[in-house]
Amino acid sequence: MAEFEKLPGIGPRSAERLAFHILKTDKESALALAAAIRDVKEHVHHCRVCCHLTETDPCQICGDPRRERSRIFVVEQPKDLLQLEATGLVRGVYHVLLGHIAPLDGIEPGDLTIDGLVSRVKAGGIEEVVIATNPTMEGEGTALHIKSLLASTGVKITQLARGLPTGSQLEYASRAILQDAIEGRREF
Amino acid sequence: MAEFEKLPGIGPRSAERLAFHILKTDKESALALAAAIRDVKEHVHHCRVCCHLTETDPCQICGDPRRERSRIFVVEQPKDLLQLEATGLVRGVYHVLLGHIAPLDGIEPGDLTIDGLVSRVKAGGIEEVVIATNPTMEGEGTALHIKSLLASTGVKITQLARGLPTGSQLEYASRAILQDAIEGRREF
Repeated sequence: MAEFEKLPGIGPRSAERLAFHILKTDKESALALAAAIRDVKEHVHHCRVCCHLTETDPCQICGDPRRERSRIFVVEQPKDLLQLEATGLVRGVYHVLLGHIAPLDGIEPGDLTIDGLVSRVKAGGIEEVVIATNPTMEGEGTALHIKSLLASTGVKITQLARGLPTGSQLEYASRAILQDAIEGRREF
Repeated sequence: MAEFEKLPGIGPRSAERLAFHILKTDKESALALAAAIRDVKEHVHHCRVCCHLTETDPCQICGDPRRERSRIFVVEQPKDLLQLEATGLVRGVYHVLLGHIAPLDGIEPGDLTIDGLVSRVKAGGIEEVVIATNPTMEGEGTALHIKSLLASTGVKITQLARGLPTGSQLEYASRAILQDAIEGRREF
């Protein structure tokens, strides 16, 4: 119970329920869970190219010859990569920062994989770096920091579009969203 | 009670509560409400230029000499105009369509104020038409219809930006939002 309770979103009651489930379940299922947890820690690591979570090295995306290696999508977390990948619209490769700059939380640029990104770009062959950090204060700060580091390379730097989310109503949009939408308006 | 119950969002219980409030309140307050309702119907009408709701003609925005008359923001409803106006970022003028094209609901282009918009643009002096319909299927259909009608005028037609709403997380964005964000990415 004490171990389950350390997991996020698991309180004392849930931990008790999970522990009793393990006691009741057959030995095989319980050992399968234990093995899966151990396997993840032993076999899953960060891709040496893009820092995504992977069991192979480089990861399947970096190792895929059909991907456009000249276009790097920069995301904060592996789950953001999965979200973009699920759209099927990204033909380039990724770079996972493993977080965002947040000085108040003690997260400095050196804690992220920004150096690795800069090395990749400086190694050449890159046409476009698409910054796909979250449209939040921390994500934007991280984007600006990366932009300043890459400015001297002359590589094209773009950012995901911000504006009105598809399917929404102007009536319920915040001022910040409307500002992005007005200032970012485009030829139609 | 029967009259109150015809209002949107007012059920039988609310109608009863409102009716008893009118009975209890002093005569002056009750008559003020009655007068306000009558005044609105008698004095508020659509601006002959932009079709916004107004008590003056033209409306205060169309009559304001400091506004850029060369830039028209096209919205579906008066409440969308108010929402954009509240940002303080629009220096141009507006055109209120009074709805959107929705053939399934029997709303045809002729039911909107599109003819008025086309006349305004053809009268000259317009540099940019910013289409600010909702980022919905109906809003987009209406935008495309307007675009096709204005194409021959050579006026610059733009549309509010779509993409990730500021403050959101990539992780929770729908595929449609991510598609707008990826395809609409811009130089950063």
